[in-house]
Amino acid sequence: MPQYKAPLRDMQFLIHEVFNAGQHYQQLGYTDVNLDLIDAILTEGARFTENELAPLRTLGDEQGAKWKDGVVTTPPGFKDAFNAFRDNGWATLAIDPEWGGQGLPHSLNIIFHEMCFTANVAWGAIVTLTQGAIRAIEAHASDELKALYLPKLGSIEWTGTMCLTEPHAGSDVGLVKTKAEPQADGTYAISGTKIFITQGENDYADNIIHLVLARLPGAPKGPKGISLFLVPKFLPDAAGQPGARNRISCASIEKKMGLKGSPTCVLNFDGAQGWLVGPPGSGLACMFTMMNAARLDVGIEGLAAAELSFQGALAYAKDRLQMRAPTGPVAPEKEADPIIAHPDVRRMLMTQKALAEGCRALAYHIALQLDQEAHGDVDSRKAASDRVALLTPINKAFLTDRGLECANLGVQVFGGHGYIHEHGMEQIVRDVRISLLYEGTNGIQANDLIGRKLISNRGALLRSFLDEIESFCAANSNNPRVGGMVEVLAQHTAEWWQLAQELMAKSAAEPNTIASVAVDFQDYAGYVTLAWLWARMALTAAEQLDAGAADAAFYQAKLKTARFYYDRILPRTRSLVATLGCSADSVMDLAVDEFVF
Amino acid sequence: MPQYKAPLRDMQFLIHEVFNAGQHYQQLGYTDVNLDLIDAILTEGARFTENELAPLRTLGDEQGAKWKDGVVTTPPGFKDAFNAFRDNGWATLAIDPEWGGQGLPHSLNIIFHEMCFTANVAWGAIVTLTQGAIRAIEAHASDELKALYLPKLGSIEWTGTMCLTEPHAGSDVGLVKTKAEPQADGTYAISGTKIFITQGENDYADNIIHLVLARLPGAPKGPKGISLFLVPKFLPDAAGQPGARNRISCASIEKKMGLKGSPTCVLNFDGAQGWLVGPPGSGLACMFTMMNAARLDVGIEGLAAAELSFQGALAYAKDRLQMRAPTGPVAPEKEADPIIAHPDVRRMLMTQKALAEGCRALAYHIALQLDQEAHGDVDSRKAASDRVALLTPINKAFLTDRGLECANLGVQVFGGHGYIHEHGMEQIVRDVRISLLYEGTNGIQANDLIGRKLISNRGALLRSFLDEIESFCAANSNNPRVGGMVEVLAQHTAEWWQLAQELMAKSAAEPNTIASVAVDFQDYAGYVTLAWLWARMALTAAEQLDAGAADAAFYQAKLKTARFYYDRILPRTRSLVATLGCSADSVMDLAVDEFVF
Repeated sequence: MPQYKAPLRDMQFLIHEVFNAGQHYQQLGYTDVNLDLIDAILTEGARFTENELAPLRTLGDEQGAKWKDGVVTTPPGFKDAFNAFRDNGWATLAIDPEWGGQGLPHSLNIIFHEMCFTANVAWGAIVTLTQGAIRAIEAHASDELKALYLPKLGSIEWTGTMCLTEPHAGSDVGLVKTKAEPQADGTYAISGTKIFITQGENDYADNIIHLVLARLPGAPKGPKGISLFLVPKFLPDAAGQPGARNRISCASIEKKMGLKGSPTCVLNFDGAQGWLVGPPGSGLACMFTMMNAARLDVGIEGLAAAELSFQGALAYAKDRLQMRAPTGPVAPEKEADPIIAHPDVRRMLMTQKALAEGCRALAYHIALQLDQEAHGDVDSRKAASDRVALLTPINKAFLTDRGLECANLGVQVFGGHGYIHEHGMEQIVRDVRISLLYEGTNGIQANDLIGRKLISNRGALLRSFLDEIESFCAANSNNPRVGGMVEVLAQHTAEWWQLAQELMAKSAAEPNTIASVAVDFQDYAGYVTLAWLWARMALTAAEQLDAGAADAAFYQAKLKTARFYYDRILPRTRSLVATLGCSADSVMDLAVDEFVF
Repeated sequence: MPQYKAPLRDMQFLIHEVFNAGQHYQQLGYTDVNLDLIDAILTEGARFTENELAPLRTLGDEQGAKWKDGVVTTPPGFKDAFNAFRDNGWATLAIDPEWGGQGLPHSLNIIFHEMCFTANVAWGAIVTLTQGAIRAIEAHASDELKALYLPKLGSIEWTGTMCLTEPHAGSDVGLVKTKAEPQADGTYAISGTKIFITQGENDYADNIIHLVLARLPGAPKGPKGISLFLVPKFLPDAAGQPGARNRISCASIEKKMGLKGSPTCVLNFDGAQGWLVGPPGSGLACMFTMMNAARLDVGIEGLAAAELSFQGALAYAKDRLQMRAPTGPVAPEKEADPIIAHPDVRRMLMTQKALAEGCRALAYHIALQLDQEAHGDVDSRKAASDRVALLTPINKAFLTDRGLECANLGVQVFGGHGYIHEHGMEQIVRDVRISLLYEGTNGIQANDLIGRKLISNRGALLRSFLDEIESFCAANSNNPRVGGMVEVLAQHTAEWWQLAQELMAKSAAEPNTIASVAVDFQDYAGYVTLAWLWARMALTAAEQLDAGAADAAFYQAKLKTARFYYDRILPRTRSLVATLGCSADSVMDLAVDEFVF
């Protein structure tokens, strides 16, 4: 059973040493956010997640959330953990002080989220959604709605949801049919069925605030006819307290592969009272306000799976004795060697380690750019916004794909024991599987990357990112400790641009080709982006070693893991380069009727 | 919910057209096994598995096998299906007539097994094990034991198990501690605990015959000290009927990720009465008698997952309406296009189809070689045995790895609905996951392939296989319909031999390097072997089209799927070639203590 231990040293290495976040926060005006405060938050976050959340992970899976007569009960202990989360101030970390929050940088919150997701991702689902609702209300709702709802959501006395999906409208949100009928008092009567609503009903909070996509009468078909509405479970009374029950019912919760501690609800809106958020017809745009942050969180669920599975597999591989190492016994006094001595087991562990640490670097890089986008000066905001736009689909898809891969490697390290529930490894596979699907499937991410983030701006976002990588390569090509990596990285950067140009050139004439290689392009992007981050981490580690830093073993491990990444993981791009050159022909040639067996 | 339909047309294409099995059976002396008989078996097998087994798949997962006070109950309907399986003669298909069987070729049985595993793999687990026990008893037990047990096992009145694993002895069977004490009457008292015993206790049969690995007093440590014993649940009485209960108890069954309808038992042997099978110290060798057949069956579990997931995803992709195709509406009368119109969905379906059909060809090729090994003339036996030895680890690991991949693709095609239990897609992922672990993890297969099947015979087995592929290439390089594929195949064949030679040259000096690339070598082998089979299938399809065969759409689909395989799947070898050139350095460099976080 993996015992979660927050990887504080690795987190500090990234935040303090690689990304120099102290300076970043100072520049953004967070004058109080110094190294000590950051470390205090990390340490306390580790304590909370290791002690309060991790012990509930397996129990939450076994007991699951329960539904009875429209009432949802979360697994034993989940509500207590939620109360501790709220009472200890974790919920308000990055909330604007105007709504009672602590006003700390969002990036610190994201690191805390990583700990929550790794300790207990089913419990952690609650933290993303309420913050997403706050973000959308802050950006688009009237001052009245803000004043009424944000303090309660900020303190997480009330929780939030996003109600997009309907039975026939999943990836294609434009098909939404839920209706919003204007009422005499300026509110709207919302009617329709929403599915897949995470925490749509729960026993955590006094009230639940739903953000619902629906259509006004006469609205045009498709995405442009969709508006956003705030629909509370209980209508606030004159004092702002939960009053009359709104006409919303939870018809059922889904029986899922995993994430069983998090209720996934079918919600019926039967003329429920709602308030318009943002202008009519701008529902999707308003929802997209929270999309980047939500997709970053989902990517981190993938990273969390990789980390937890690595921790479990590592402990087991040190302990489990089977056979002798190929070069002779390493534990001759025992009946067999620990399996970490076997190169194939080592290969799996190194893959998990290289991917988890590389994915963490990517997630933190984006998190810091989100800070910049929100609080930087005008120029840096634009640059950060572009970077976030480009990297968000890559991060969401790549981290979750790799999270599933690493979770499966963890099962494999355990052998047959990995398949047994009590060892806690197979649950990681089941829990992470949803992250490849929700907040836009990874195929939808690839469409976003190649369409909106590459072709529609003629490669400008990518070019600017590659310029930064190339500058890094130019500055460090003579460093003997990382020079070899930097050379390979520079080759990949040039190749990436070449591939992108070829795809952009084909885009008008061959839309099917573009769509048929989008996922491979996204994979390629992920591997090269991680290569850049691994080279940066290696450089920092080399500098620390050159400076005679204590903790040399940690930095040596970084350098060795970077080399492993370049030796054994980055070459996956070779296959992707081959398929990225293919036309759509062999994908599309088979007529639908020819799919016979 | 996937509705299993046995892919009879594809099975017939392979058996009749690609592999010309009618002639194969005639040559082996199966004079009655003609096309009509084969088709009758396929058709009846489809009827049985589609109607009796498939409807129980989801129910078996939901209800699971149950344990109470040592008694195991299989899910509702499983026992009825078992009775029908027995009463309709399916169990005796390939059993020797001497033990009451029908004496048909084992390969036909394997095709039937594929149907069982695809319809309901948890139910299907029973068919492999009893046949494995029969095989080991036939080959190694005394005539007395054969006469007593084989008729009952052959008719599946009694079922069989293989008891290898102990809590501390998994991949390393040499660590087995179970004891066998000789008794005055020539039997042995068996004491120890065995785990992961599939169907170790069940409610199907009147008796359960365990084949148990144990140590005689004073036996040497390690694999050479292990002997094989036959230990029945009930001791046969004078009439050969189940008599007194033996001292074996089922302490519990495992809670697993999937395969819940198949009980996985902890068995305690407390001085149980057993009979020696084969000479003392030859337990592992005797067990290996059944290993190739059992590993072929496990590989087919992977193929089954790919097939079932493909069938489910295909039906959904034709039905589900979301967004418009990149080249404009294909169903303008509907609110959106079926998602099969989207290239990325098509890419996933084609991947499933190309892998399922390619893997089926590999499994059937091996199945026919198993027939040859058992019934051919002396020369052909040796050649078949070599081929089976080489391809068994490739087949077991590659088919299960690809099965997991395809099952995950099926979930992905369903989007969020794929994560919901009721749609039946996530169960395929959970059920197939064990196949990468049991009967030797896929890492163990890779060790077997690169060690015993490549290095220890200096590449002779591989060379002989490559000779056949090269002959095929030489004979067909001028065929315009497959010439392009054949050229690529020939390049890969040469490359494979080159890689193998490089690895063999390193093997003595760099055992860690060999072990660290074994899995990549196995993957490479799988992709190129499937390329050979896809070229063969394409050639057969082209010949049928040239001959003006009816059913042109089927053959066109084969040609198009072959092209997809060469375009989009085979290039995965490019990454493997890169990593196969790596030394073990970056895998092994990190000291165990440096794995810190």
